[in-house]
Amino acid sequence: MAAIGKRVWAIAEGWIPQGDGFTDRALASHETACIVNAGESDAHIDLTIFFADREPVHYALTVPARRTRHVRFDDLTDPPVPRGTDYASLFVSDEPVVVQHTRLDSRKAEIALMTTLAYSQD
Amino acid sequence: MAAIGKRVWAIAEGWIPQGDGFTDRALASHETACIVNAGESDAHIDLTIFFADREPVHYALTVPARRTRHVRFDDLTDPPVPRGTDYASLFVSDEPVVVQHTRLDSRKAEIALMTTLAYSQD
Amino acid sequence: MAAIGKRVWAIAEGWIPQGDGFTDRALASHETACIVNAGESDAHIDLTIFFADREPVHYALTVPARRTRHVRFDDLTDPPVPRGTDYASLFVSDEPVVVQHTRLDSRKAEIALMTTLAYSQD
Amino acid sequence: MAAIGKRVWAIAEGWIPQGDGFTDRALASHETACIVNAGESDAHIDLTIFFADREPVHYALTVPARRTRHVRFDDLTDPPVPRGTDYASLFVSDEPVVVQHTRLDSRKAEIALMTTLAYSQD
Repeated sequence: MAAIGKRVWAIAEGWIPQGDGFTDRALASHETACIVNAGESDAHIDLTIFFADREPVHYALTVPARRTRHVRFDDLTDPPVPRGTDYASLFVSDEPVVVQHTRLDSRKAEIALMTTLAYSQD
Repeated sequence: MAAIGKRVWAIAEGWIPQGDGFTDRALASHETACIVNAGESDAHIDLTIFFADREPVHYALTVPARRTRHVRFDDLTDPPVPRGTDYASLFVSDEPVVVQHTRLDSRKAEIALMTTLAYSQD
Repeated sequence: MAAIGKRVWAIAEGWIPQGDGFTDRALASHETACIVNAGESDAHIDLTIFFADREPVHYALTVPARRTRHVRFDDLTDPPVPRGTDYASLFVSDEPVVVQHTRLDSRKAEIALMTTLAYSQD
Repeated sequence: MAAIGKRVWAIAEGWIPQGDGFTDRALASHETACIVNAGESDAHIDLTIFFADREPVHYALTVPARRTRHVRFDDLTDPPVPRGTDYASLFVSDEPVVVQHTRLDSRKAEIALMTTLAYSQD
């Protein structure tokens, strides 16, 4: 079977809500890039974050072979991704992967969710 | 007309909320893989579930010709899919199908929903 | 410029919630297939609804040139689409269009929303 | 590396809720087209809005090189996009971009969210 996925993925939406209705990590407002590597080699990914009014920044991620990694943008630290700020993200991997974007918003007492497959190309 | 769909589908997001606001099965927190087989032959699907920290597991699914099947991940039993755990899923079918992923989260007193077309390739 | 869209679209998810928190039509639980025809010819669409346990049914839709039509599944009448029932849908058009699927769920006092681009092919 | 994205994008869904549970701009009901331009040249975009019962209207947008722009449809002014009205949108860019569609609905006291990658072609 062919390798699963593509090497280039982009998420045009990006915005981490300011404020949480809950202190539980799983209920605090966050955005996630879910990545699955169905292949037999570890995937090394260059993640670029784009902003509306400043130059992009880069991060390095690894997703081991036969594993999924759900990366929370609020876990990125060098530099941190600001809350309440428009951004977008680009993933360039050395192995084929699949990327999906999810937001949980708990600014109010209840939560709201959204998700989408990211855009991909070779 | 050409057959509808593709044979390989992947969902990078996967996480079944722990806790339900309701006991009604339709309102309990769950994730679903909705599959439609628009063709004239039954589709036999190998489903692989990937995790962050352990080897993948496999399940066998059948979607009859001219039918849809909405598979709840919390209905998989051998082994069960753990709640509150990051996972991802891969569907490899012997017939073309279309796959969409949906989560209903009812941890709080109201529900939240999200859905996306899965990633596909031949 | 090339024509916008494709002629074959599928939505694997389909389920109209039973019960509404509101009597306002815009807040009652529903699912919609949003279709846009950016071209200069009317699009005639054969819509097939698939079920889990019975044969598919067909409907005829028209989307005029340079217009969008947001079709609520609960507005289909011959036959009506049952609530609380798994279904899926297939759109075969004589002109290129773009199709997106949305659900509003108002079973509880607040609403939940989800949407996705449908699957397309030529 | 190849340029990121495509030049033609369509969003079939479009509907700005009438009524807001909040006066805060970030919590008022709105729809957004998130656009990222990962390239080295500014992208000039012709945005067409389609309706159910009238001729389309056009807007001009620019997304600078290496930047993202999250366009709120309720910020379009010439003419404004009516609330509570079905619409759809088409983006034709002179540079490759990626487009994602998001709605926040705060008609009730809590918010609901939905998002999807838009449809793309060359």
